[in-house]
Amino acid sequence: MASSSSEAPASAVLQAESFPDGTKDYVPIRKKNWDIKKPHITDQPITAKNWYKHVNWLNTTFIIFIPLTGLISSYWVPLQLKTAVFTVLYYFFAGLGITAGYHRLWAHTSYKATLPLKIFLAAGGAAAVEGSARWWSSLHRSHHRYTDTEKDPYSVRKGLLYSHIGWMVMKQNPRRIGRTDITDLNDDAVVVWQHRNYIKSVITMALIVPMLVCGFGWGDWAGGFVYAGILRIFFIQQATFCVNSLAHWLGDQPFDDRNSPRDHVVTAIVTLGEGYHNFHHEFPSDFRNAIEWWQYDPTKWFISTMKFLGFAYNLKTFPQNEIEKGRLQQLQKKLDQKRVTLDWGIPLENLPVVSWDDFVEESKNGKALVAIAGIIHDVGKFIADHPGGKTLINSAIGKDATAVFNGGVYNHSNAAHNLLSTMRVGVLRGGCEVEIWKRAQSENKDVQTVTD
Amino acid sequence: MASSSSEAPASAVLQAESFPDGTKDYVPIRKKNWDIKKPHITDQPITAKNWYKHVNWLNTTFIIFIPLTGLISSYWVPLQLKTAVFTVLYYFFAGLGITAGYHRLWAHTSYKATLPLKIFLAAGGAAAVEGSARWWSSLHRSHHRYTDTEKDPYSVRKGLLYSHIGWMVMKQNPRRIGRTDITDLNDDAVVVWQHRNYIKSVITMALIVPMLVCGFGWGDWAGGFVYAGILRIFFIQQATFCVNSLAHWLGDQPFDDRNSPRDHVVTAIVTLGEGYHNFHHEFPSDFRNAIEWWQYDPTKWFISTMKFLGFAYNLKTFPQNEIEKGRLQQLQKKLDQKRVTLDWGIPLENLPVVSWDDFVEESKNGKALVAIAGIIHDVGKFIADHPGGKTLINSAIGKDATAVFNGGVYNHSNAAHNLLSTMRVGVLRGGCEVEIWKRAQSENKDVQTVTD
Ligand code: HEM
Ligand code: HEM
Ligand SMILES: [Fe+2]
Ligand SMILES: [Fe+2]
Ligand SMILES: [Fe+2]
Ligand SMILES: [Fe+2]
Repeated sequence: MASSSSEAPASAVLQAESFPDGTKDYVPIRKKNWDIKKPHITDQPITAKNWYKHVNWLNTTFIIFIPLTGLISSYWVPLQLKTAVFTVLYYFFAGLGITAGYHRLWAHTSYKATLPLKIFLAAGGAAAVEGSARWWSSLHRSHHRYTDTEKDPYSVRKGLLYSHIGWMVMKQNPRRIGRTDITDLNDDAVVVWQHRNYIKSVITMALIVPMLVCGFGWGDWAGGFVYAGILRIFFIQQATFCVNSLAHWLGDQPFDDRNSPRDHVVTAIVTLGEGYHNFHHEFPSDFRNAIEWWQYDPTKWFISTMKFLGFAYNLKTFPQNEIEKGRLQQLQKKLDQKRVTLDWGIPLENLPVVSWDDFVEESKNGKALVAIAGIIHDVGKFIADHPGGKTLINSAIGKDATAVFNGGVYNHSNAAHNLLSTMRVGVLRGGCEVEIWKRAQSENKDVQTVTD
Repeated sequence: MASSSSEAPASAVLQAESFPDGTKDYVPIRKKNWDIKKPHITDQPITAKNWYKHVNWLNTTFIIFIPLTGLISSYWVPLQLKTAVFTVLYYFFAGLGITAGYHRLWAHTSYKATLPLKIFLAAGGAAAVEGSARWWSSLHRSHHRYTDTEKDPYSVRKGLLYSHIGWMVMKQNPRRIGRTDITDLNDDAVVVWQHRNYIKSVITMALIVPMLVCGFGWGDWAGGFVYAGILRIFFIQQATFCVNSLAHWLGDQPFDDRNSPRDHVVTAIVTLGEGYHNFHHEFPSDFRNAIEWWQYDPTKWFISTMKFLGFAYNLKTFPQNEIEKGRLQQLQKKLDQKRVTLDWGIPLENLPVVSWDDFVEESKNGKALVAIAGIIHDVGKFIADHPGGKTLINSAIGKDATAVFNGGVYNHSNAAHNLLSTMRVGVLRGGCEVEIWKRAQSENKDVQTVTD
């Protein structure tokens, strides 16, 4: 891997200087429109005078203005059934370009793809109009490495809207974004080609192709442009942006709750299966996001189908053992958090030590004391509530009820043991009754012991 | 309590001789149809000749023959709307007689009822035709005390059908059934009256009253008898029998899995809320079976309403703290069971102890060894799969990567720590690198130490 940059001349120029930790700055390989050494616009606060300089107008055009024109034009363009069906199919094509291509193949290298599949995915990704695979994957690696921190390019900690589109609509200081290693992407000819020819690819795949298909196919040029083109772009963008917003905001955290990623079926439905995002951040190089067969993860199904057809190989999965361990530890963490909020009774070491005789004496004088397993309990307030009746519990007062409590009469449930622990008032000196008796025997100076 | 049997002459005769554990045999206070000292029919195996002696014909008449006649008669009797509505209402009346009356009030004394409410419940219970409150509660206490054992009168361990109706259709050896204390029931005038006048009560409440209401109400004498009477009896019987069968067979065990009781919403719907049976066996004297507001427990709602109206008081609940403790412990138990099935890596004490120099040496000779937190890991097979890329993990080979692994470069997730533990191959002599160095310093005889 490391050697390839010196062997492959095409990619050598793309590699930035290495940092001591082995990662590199992201280097745009199209025209540079900023100098990393000069002060950046984001260093200045937004004012009435400079606000337009803070807006990333290129992105805003792609994700706000163009969709708006589409919405408006749709008023004059009737939607034909064939165009509608094609739009949905093209929606999935573009969506898979992002999820199976940009995300699981290039950003996470969770499987390997043959050249035809790579071209298919790069084309789909271009049709989704969300930046080049190289740019997208680089940022996404930063997102994983620096999740929820200042260096996270779309940190949900800055607000749901920011993580959804704010980070694209407003200019970002490139020095703020965490660095990552993208040597492998620079060595991927499809990624580099798509990056160098990005604008051409987008116009072709996102607008021209759908228009041609609907035009030559069934004469619906305008519908192809408006529905299968512009409006479809809008929907696919908003849907996949949800991975950065909704998937960090809605749902459960079965594997780790230190960071924001969450699992939710709604996010999964919107994002072609990327909604099991807590799992994904924990096991990012797993080609699956949903691990149960009944969960919705069409991207996973697509990759498996591609494997079956011979276009994908080396599908990576995390060992089930590790997944179960993660789930178990998170559950354990939750339990431990819950445990400390509950009352488990006075710790034994804080209880007074009472002699057997004192215990019997106090019981005779009206206190409802019961000894169980060497501990003295005041059951007075509980007698009327005892599910086993007053007679039985009364019969144990002033006695060692260890045996009757533990099956001699009734094998009390866990709940009863818990309840018992809240009634502790003392510890018997020397432990249980028998213990006491033995000690009394040996300590009693008057007792005659026969030795022969 | 114990003294009341000597003060109240009416109940004194009802009390059997006490056993040493304070409980008593169940003594029928109607005519005795068996002598506890004589051999019982159940001591003989069922044969072609004696089978009819094994059948409890009285019970079989009540729960099989009478319903059958109802089913057949319904062919000639058209169902009127008013009768249907009344049947449903009467169904709830009889059902609450069993659940709020027999079960939660008398068997478990989970609340106290005023005389009018007691009469209402005893009447409803009679309308359900499931034995007297005294008989039912006594058996039910045995069921709780000896759940799932040979002494359990309707143990589900003997089969679902047995626990549903088998235990009533076939004669049972009364000596087998576990004994319980019913002094309190013998002191309850309503219970004793209903028991002594059981057959009269049943015929009146289960058949005559519904017939009179439908007859005088809207002229539907036959419908009142067949639908509101016989068929309603059948449905209420089958529904409440489900507490003994379905509730010990279907559902989750959030509080205790040592015995059979289970929680399931389907059982709850069928049984007027008795379906949260795992909770109920753990906390039997709680007047609720469902503790969440959104769970279906109309019996609880009825009792609460009665309290509001002044007919019920002293509603018992288990402290929420105890309920949470039980739930937590059961979850913990499940986790612990799961934990032992997983691979947590070779225990540290079974690993060879390796010196720092040997570790560095072996790493130079082609082994991909990484030291983290004093433990040596063989990451060879993982390099290609590392989600953070090959470069980074390669940079740690032959080094102590404790800091970079724990945030220096990337703060690895829990999953990464787990995975790491499966790659253990050795323990560094003396712990971490720095440790080693310090020890080397002090052990090195050539080093000159200046003391002044
Ligand atoms: C000393 C403190 C005691 C506590 C805190 C206690 C608590 C409980 C609790 C919570 C139950 C409900 C069922 C369960 O959770 O297992 C229960 C039932 C029972 N207890 Fe106790 N108990 C105590 C003493 C005794 C003694 C000394 C006896 C007998 C000599 C006894 C006999 C029974 C019986 C027979 C039942 C079953 C009743 C039923 O579920 O219908 N208990 N007890
Ligand atoms: C030595 C054994 C190592 C193991 C078992 C390991 C395991 C993993 C795993 C499971 C992840 C996925 C994300 C996560 O679970 O947190 C990950 C990500 C990462 N690792 Fe490692 N790692 C190792 C060594 C290293 C080293 C030495 C470095 C840096 C010098 C490093 C840097 C990274 C980075 C930057 C990521 C984030 C990549 C992303 O999520 O996109 N790892 N590692
Ligand atoms: Fe994410
Ligand atoms: Fe990702
Ligand atoms: Fe039960
Ligand atoms: Fe019960």
